[in-house]
Amino acid sequence: MERATKCIPIPTAKRFVKQCIVAGGAKEVHAQAMADTLIAADHRGHFSHGLNRLEMYVKDIQTGSTVGDGEPVTLKESAATAHVDGKNNLGPVVGNYCMKLAIKKAKECGVGWVVAKGSNHYGIAGFYALQAVEEGLVGFSFTNSTPCLRANRSSSYTLGSNPISCAAPAVADDAFVLDMATSTAAYGRVEINHRKGIPIPNGWGADPNGRETNEPSEVLNGGGLLPLGGAEESGGYKGYGLAMMVEMLCGILGGGAYGPNVRKWGTTSREANLGQCFIALNPDMFCDGFGERMQDLMDSQRNLTPSEKDKPVLVAGDPERMHIKKCEELGGIPYPTNVVDHMNGLAKELGVKPM
Amino acid sequence: MERATKCIPIPTAKRFVKQCIVAGGAKEVHAQAMADTLIAADHRGHFSHGLNRLEMYVKDIQTGSTVGDGEPVTLKESAATAHVDGKNNLGPVVGNYCMKLAIKKAKECGVGWVVAKGSNHYGIAGFYALQAVEEGLVGFSFTNSTPCLRANRSSSYTLGSNPISCAAPAVADDAFVLDMATSTAAYGRVEINHRKGIPIPNGWGADPNGRETNEPSEVLNGGGLLPLGGAEESGGYKGYGLAMMVEMLCGILGGGAYGPNVRKWGTTSREANLGQCFIALNPDMFCDGFGERMQDLMDSQRNLTPSEKDKPVLVAGDPERMHIKKCEELGGIPYPTNVVDHMNGLAKELGVKPM
Repeated sequence: MERATKCIPIPTAKRFVKQCIVAGGAKEVHAQAMADTLIAADHRGHFSHGLNRLEMYVKDIQTGSTVGDGEPVTLKESAATAHVDGKNNLGPVVGNYCMKLAIKKAKECGVGWVVAKGSNHYGIAGFYALQAVEEGLVGFSFTNSTPCLRANRSSSYTLGSNPISCAAPAVADDAFVLDMATSTAAYGRVEINHRKGIPIPNGWGADPNGRETNEPSEVLNGGGLLPLGGAEESGGYKGYGLAMMVEMLCGILGGGAYGPNVRKWGTTSREANLGQCFIALNPDMFCDGFGERMQDLMDSQRNLTPSEKDKPVLVAGDPERMHIKKCEELGGIPYPTNVVDHMNGLAKELGVKPM
Repeated sequence: MERATKCIPIPTAKRFVKQCIVAGGAKEVHAQAMADTLIAADHRGHFSHGLNRLEMYVKDIQTGSTVGDGEPVTLKESAATAHVDGKNNLGPVVGNYCMKLAIKKAKECGVGWVVAKGSNHYGIAGFYALQAVEEGLVGFSFTNSTPCLRANRSSSYTLGSNPISCAAPAVADDAFVLDMATSTAAYGRVEINHRKGIPIPNGWGADPNGRETNEPSEVLNGGGLLPLGGAEESGGYKGYGLAMMVEMLCGILGGGAYGPNVRKWGTTSREANLGQCFIALNPDMFCDGFGERMQDLMDSQRNLTPSEKDKPVLVAGDPERMHIKKCEELGGIPYPTNVVDHMNGLAKELGVKPM
C-alpha cells in the first residue's frame, strides 16, 4: 500500500524551510541557501537529506552550535586552490562559497580545488557538484561526517559514510551525476526495514560487535553501517578505503575534525567543524568534444537491453531525473502526510505559517 | 599446501623484464620503465599485474601494436592541466611522462591534472600515485580498460574494471595507498577459484546472461565481473557509477577509446588508445600539518581492537607493505616455480638469459 502523501509545490516548500531557519535565528540569505539545498534533495528523491532534517538544522542555529549570520573566510589561496574556514556557518553557506570559488578558479586556470574546515552538514553532496555542471564544468564534492562506518576487521565505527559526488555535463541539460555514500546503504534505508519488520540484505550493516547482520535493530542500536562491498571477501575493504580517501580530502587536508573525532549526529555541545572538498574542472582544457562523448557513453549504457523488462539500464543521475519528472507531473514534491504534519507542528512552535 | 616458489632478487627480475622487452623491439629506456612497473607490482604483492603479463607486452611490441621507441607529446597545456597524446608508447612510458608533468604543475601552482589518450596498459595504478607521494604530494591515477564489468541491470559487459588509485604521504615513509579496481574482485581471483574448483563468493561475477553466479567457469566463459557492491540491492550501482566516473576522467576527457569501444584484452589488431588520468596535489596549499594528521588517522585505525585476533585492522597500503617486508626477509620476490619456468621458456624464444 502506498503511504498517504501530500504534494507541496517547490516554492512553498522553500518558503517554509527559509522561514523556519530564519525563525531559528539565521539571516535570510543563509536560510535561503539552506532551503535551496534541502528542497533540492527532496526534489531529486533523496528524502533522507531534505525536509526531514530541517529540525536538526533549526536546533543547530537555536543553540548557537551553528552560526546563523557569519561569513566563510579564505585563509590561503593560489590560482588553482583555496583553503577556507567556514567559520561554523550553515553547511550550504560554506558549500556555496567554496564551490563558487572552485568554479571561478577552474574558469581561470582549468582546475579549482577548494577545501574547507569549520563547516556543518551541507545536505546532498551532489548539490555542489551540479553547480559546476551548470557552468559547463565537471564538479566534485566530498564531506566527512559522523562516525557510523565499521572500520575493516574491527567492531569500531570510526569513519563517516563520507559521500563522493561527481557530476559531468553531457549534451543540452543531460549530465552524469554520481552522488553516493561510501557505505553500502544509508541509515535511512535500515530504518525503513526496521519499521516494516523485514531483514536487511547482506552487506548493509553490522551489530555492536562488528559482525555483519540482517537484523536492522542491531544496526540501529550500537551497530553501524558496512562500507560499500560489505564483508572483506566481497570487497568491503575497498569501500572502507574510499571512505578514508574522502576523509583525507576533507578533514585531513582542511584541518577540521576527522575520523573518530567528528561529533555525534544531532549533538550540539561543540562545533561540528566538518571538512569538505570541492573541485571544478574545465573539460575544454583536454580533448574537444567532451559533452558529446559523455552523452554517447551515457546513451550507449541506457540503450542496452535490460535483464528484466521493467528495469531499464540507468546511469548515475537517472533515478533523480525520474523523480524530478514525477514531481513535475504531480505539481510538487510528494511528502508523506505524517511528515507534513510533523513539519507543521515544528512551524507552530517557531511561529511560522504552515505548509 | 603452499605452492613451490622460487625467490628472484628484484634486480634480477628487472633485468629479465628489461631484456625481454628490448628483445621484443623496444628501446632500453622504455623497457626499463616497463620493468620498473611490472616488478613493483610483484614486489607489492599484485602478481596479477606483474611478470605474468610480460608476454602480452612483448607481443604488443613485436606486432607493432604498441610503439617501442616513440615519445609522448603534450597537446595542450595550462599552469595546472595538460592533455597528452601517448603516441601509442608503452603504458608506463606514458604514465611516467604524465605523472612527472602533474608533479611539476602541483609544485608550481598546487595542482597538476594531466589526461592522456593514446596510451596502453600501464600496470598497477598505484605505481603512478606513489610517485607523487615520493615528492610529498597527494597522487591520483586512473585508467580505463577492456570491457569486463557488467553494466547495471543488463547482461552486457561494457566498462572496464577501471581502477582508482589515491596515495597520500603520512610521516616518514608511511603513506595511505588505495589502489583498487572498481569491480568487486579481479579476474585473477576468479581464475584461482576456478583452478581450485571452489565457488566464488556472492558479488564477484555474473554469467553470460548477466545473472550473478557463484560458478567461476560461467564468469570466465562469456560472463564477467560485477561492480563493487555486487547486486543492485547491495550497492552494485555505486561500483558501476565509480567505473563510469573513471571512464569520464580517462577516455572521455582524453578523447581516446572509451567504454565498449576499448579493444579486447590481449588483441593486437588495432591500437589500444587507452585514456589515463593523473593528478598531483600539494597538501601545503591547505592546512599545515597534513602528514601528521594523516599519520594519526591511519594509526588510530590500525590500533583498533581487531574482531578476530589474527586479523589486524589495516589501512589501504598495509597489505602491500607486509608483502614488501616478506620480500625483504626472503631476499627477493617469491614467484611460483611454474611461473619462473614459463618465463624462462619465453626468454629462450627471445634469446634472453633466463632468470
